[in-house]
Amino acid sequence: MKLAPNEFEMEHQITYYECDPAGVVTPGMLINMIVLVSERQSDALKIGTQVVNDNGGGWVITNYEINITDLPKIDETVFLGTRATSYNRYFAFREFWVRDQSSHKYAHVAGMFVFMEFASRKMAKIPAAIIDPYHSTEVKRIPRIKNPAAIDTDEAISTNQYRVRYFDIDSNRHVNNAHYFDWMLDVLGAEFLKTHMLKKMNIKYAREVRYGQMVNSLATAPEQDETNGYLMTKHEIKVDEVLTTQANCWWIDRS
Amino acid sequence: MKLAPNEFEMEHQITYYECDPAGVVTPGMLINMIVLVSERQSDALKIGTQVVNDNGGGWVITNYEINITDLPKIDETVFLGTRATSYNRYFAFREFWVRDQSSHKYAHVAGMFVFMEFASRKMAKIPAAIIDPYHSTEVKRIPRIKNPAAIDTDEAISTNQYRVRYFDIDSNRHVNNAHYFDWMLDVLGAEFLKTHMLKKMNIKYAREVRYGQMVNSLATAPEQDETNGYLMTKHEIKVDEVLTTQANCWWIDRS
Repeated sequence: MKLAPNEFEMEHQITYYECDPAGVVTPGMLINMIVLVSERQSDALKIGTQVVNDNGGGWVITNYEINITDLPKIDETVFLGTRATSYNRYFAFREFWVRDQSSHKYAHVAGMFVFMEFASRKMAKIPAAIIDPYHSTEVKRIPRIKNPAAIDTDEAISTNQYRVRYFDIDSNRHVNNAHYFDWMLDVLGAEFLKTHMLKKMNIKYAREVRYGQMVNSLATAPEQDETNGYLMTKHEIKVDEVLTTQANCWWIDRS
Repeated sequence: MKLAPNEFEMEHQITYYECDPAGVVTPGMLINMIVLVSERQSDALKIGTQVVNDNGGGWVITNYEINITDLPKIDETVFLGTRATSYNRYFAFREFWVRDQSSHKYAHVAGMFVFMEFASRKMAKIPAAIIDPYHSTEVKRIPRIKNPAAIDTDEAISTNQYRVRYFDIDSNRHVNNAHYFDWMLDVLGAEFLKTHMLKKMNIKYAREVRYGQMVNSLATAPEQDETNGYLMTKHEIKVDEVLTTQANCWWIDRS
């Protein structure tokens, strides 16, 4: 496939430990894979984590929108792709995809990133040195990723507690993204997860979860969404009643 | 590297989500990787899981002995290797290694496997059809992997509870091996894990842990082992007071 200057792809063979009991990539591992390809692109352009940190801060993800056609299976070789689509003063919009060798697209993910300054611990203007090499397009109006709807106070919820473990922290020194997905979706239970397939997910990260904390994962019962006919679930991750992550998921029957 | 007929290797590039905060492969992921190469060998020889199941049972791991020189780092391309070393009527002894491109050996793992018959739910004679293609050596006396020492009743222990999650089950439809390691080692705490490196581990699987169960992970405080000068910790995984997994770990300072 011909790639644009702002695009990057890598091959990846799916391992059994990236798959669920049905032999299909888990949503958490899908996110791990797309972060992997964007890290490889940054490294290839010599603007990896170290260089970003040397510019006084770090990239922080605020939102993902995930759209799934279907997901690759164990042993398959896929292409992970990413594109630094556009950016403005404060926001960088990036797209990701997973495709097979005949360009069937398994999944598309849109992500919004900000640059968090170490000194102020606040969002800051994105330094030119860490954005220019991507050949991303500078824009006035950045595409918007829809925030997930919150759980209403009168909605029935399921909830589970999870402990943040040492090995949940990956080499980025943050709780690995996959674990947020595992906490959020595990609450729905094996029966639901076995019989349903995730088609779409919006996720918003508000606060970071840290090692040793106990997280509460809340989920609503699946309800039909009239706009697309999918089953919808709403999710929240809280630490001591403080909201850290919010998501909406849309599902179809696996059969 | 020239491989014997009973040997098999594959290349693997280390991802960030296989690494700990120091950017080094986690013990759990090391085991995932060596199981991966043995599955690829079995598939290449057309005696993968489906064929084994068609012979009326499945391979079950009883013990591992893990010896670590050091562990590969994020982005490194390594070779995962395995050898179907020897077998007798009931036991199959297999070795695994992880090496770099100049044959520096990161880790060596020995594993003992039995064939569990579905009908009787017991260990049974290994069918010729699923062992012959490995070119393993039939022996009278199979090498022994030392069982870990149990935690004595008077030893002080740390303990944590962990919930077995849906996404802990991998495409082999069992709790993924890495999670046993995460449960066992997490109890030691971030401070110890940050400052110590695992050198050796003996692990014995007695009973399977299942989805939805709460596991208790018990660990003794690190104590000097006079025989090798390493710090030693003893580990047990229990479900409702029933022992499922036992291990001993030996550690050195990371510095």
